[in-house]
Amino acid sequence: MPTIRPVTRADHDQWLTLWEGYNAFYKRVGPAAVPPEVTQMTWARFFDGYESMHALVAESDGRLVGLVHYIFHRNTTMLGPVCYLQDLFTDPSQRGKGVGKALIEAVYEQARLAGSPRVYWHTHDTNKTVMRLYDYVATHSGFVVYRKDV
Amino acid sequence: MPTIRPVTRADHDQWLTLWEGYNAFYKRVGPAAVPPEVTQMTWARFFDGYESMHALVAESDGRLVGLVHYIFHRNTTMLGPVCYLQDLFTDPSQRGKGVGKALIEAVYEQARLAGSPRVYWHTHDTNKTVMRLYDYVATHSGFVVYRKDV
Amino acid sequence: MPTIRPVTRADHDQWLTLWEGYNAFYKRVGPAAVPPEVTQMTWARFFDGYESMHALVAESDGRLVGLVHYIFHRNTTMLGPVCYLQDLFTDPSQRGKGVGKALIEAVYEQARLAGSPRVYWHTHDTNKTVMRLYDYVATHSGFVVYRKDV
Amino acid sequence: MPTIRPVTRADHDQWLTLWEGYNAFYKRVGPAAVPPEVTQMTWARFFDGYESMHALVAESDGRLVGLVHYIFHRNTTMLGPVCYLQDLFTDPSQRGKGVGKALIEAVYEQARLAGSPRVYWHTHDTNKTVMRLYDYVATHSGFVVYRKDV
Repeated sequence: MPTIRPVTRADHDQWLTLWEGYNAFYKRVGPAAVPPEVTQMTWARFFDGYESMHALVAESDGRLVGLVHYIFHRNTTMLGPVCYLQDLFTDPSQRGKGVGKALIEAVYEQARLAGSPRVYWHTHDTNKTVMRLYDYVATHSGFVVYRKDV
Repeated sequence: MPTIRPVTRADHDQWLTLWEGYNAFYKRVGPAAVPPEVTQMTWARFFDGYESMHALVAESDGRLVGLVHYIFHRNTTMLGPVCYLQDLFTDPSQRGKGVGKALIEAVYEQARLAGSPRVYWHTHDTNKTVMRLYDYVATHSGFVVYRKDV
Repeated sequence: MPTIRPVTRADHDQWLTLWEGYNAFYKRVGPAAVPPEVTQMTWARFFDGYESMHALVAESDGRLVGLVHYIFHRNTTMLGPVCYLQDLFTDPSQRGKGVGKALIEAVYEQARLAGSPRVYWHTHDTNKTVMRLYDYVATHSGFVVYRKDV
Repeated sequence: MPTIRPVTRADHDQWLTLWEGYNAFYKRVGPAAVPPEVTQMTWARFFDGYESMHALVAESDGRLVGLVHYIFHRNTTMLGPVCYLQDLFTDPSQRGKGVGKALIEAVYEQARLAGSPRVYWHTHDTNKTVMRLYDYVATHSGFVVYRKDV
């Protein structure tokens, strides 16, 4: 099983490869690509003590094989923050070994340590493969997401 | 049409009536009720310049008839914050007059002013009445919400 | 008297001239200059709803003649945030007209609105001219500042 | 030498004793005392992943002998946050053993990890004993603190 640990500055190049793989998987390419300055800022925010944005990585045989990004933010029905798990990715060559599950459970642990009683995330309802994992580790809440670009 | 404006401390009692109506509508009553200390903290956070939690109210004939609560938080794919519209409620006696739509559009305007390129929210997929409004003012993204209480 | 108002994106060029005048006054030039990418980030943070960094400007006859920057942050002895007034500058041609005093008092008002019971700032103890103003509008606390670049 | 480590929820009672000793030392007693609800909130914020307020403690022979509280906040001349070391206290029975110095240096290390290039704090200029330590580990900047309760 991989080791799950906080990302460090030394992980930049391997993290970037995973991040690009993740974005390609979700078709964020071409005009829809995450601009390099956003990637650079997101990376910087992981190491900025004022921000509430964090990354964990999965390491196996000295190599990064997965990432998860999560953010603490306020919620009107809780004293403590809620934890938004925004991004989860496992290197395609390492699928089926429990890397994603281990990353999600590590976020649960970080949320508990940060006084956050709930972790949530979004997934597209056509994403049936990954929803099997999500149904196993969490609850399909029945809520759907509306959005407006303003 | 109602006036949409930021909540003020003087609105506390009328806001509380709306907040309680909203929670009752979503069956957050009895053991599932929002505890009074959470309501008090949420109220305090609207007026705390360090927090990113805000409230607007709809006022009609000198009386509050609606509320909306929204929160700015980070997002890994944007420089600016994303805007989470968490709570929306219109006094049942005032339905069908465009209060909800006006509140949502006021959040869009606040998001633009705060450098936030996107507003999003969650709604239960059985909530067909309100989804007609949401389909009109925003996009049903196809994303669903997973949750885990940790 | 000038009008004191929140900075807007349209003020960028005039704000930059004042910011550069301010930095030059404090000898932040040459190797000690504020790097352009920091100026750009600070400007962006004024318009980012997740941040707690704000700017007011003084406008007189359609032209900016002063600026003040302030930041809300936590404090272990208060429920609400404390307000750090970091930067204050008046165009040298407009000195002695009360611009600085008006800017400071506008920060007091913003602090009250943001639930912040205290405004504080730092000034070098050789800066006797400006300390006459500060002694008039605030209290010389007797506290001194220690620093360590780490 | 004591061990310096992050505070945990299990430390509450011993932390409270130190916090009360600290406040008594600075004459925050009677009408000037920190109210219990503020102490409770400050404690809660140490464990809230949305906040940027932290505490370290010094442990010696299984007992807490010192505390330090620090806060990350924005600064207009830096990309990363600045670190405000607000409170430092050593049990009077343990003075002269390097506890305070070890706590300050641990904050330096945390600041580095959090991308914060500078730590600062305030001390009253009559506090000559402790200023000997501060002159040793940091720089007396020549800046003084002005304050206004608003």
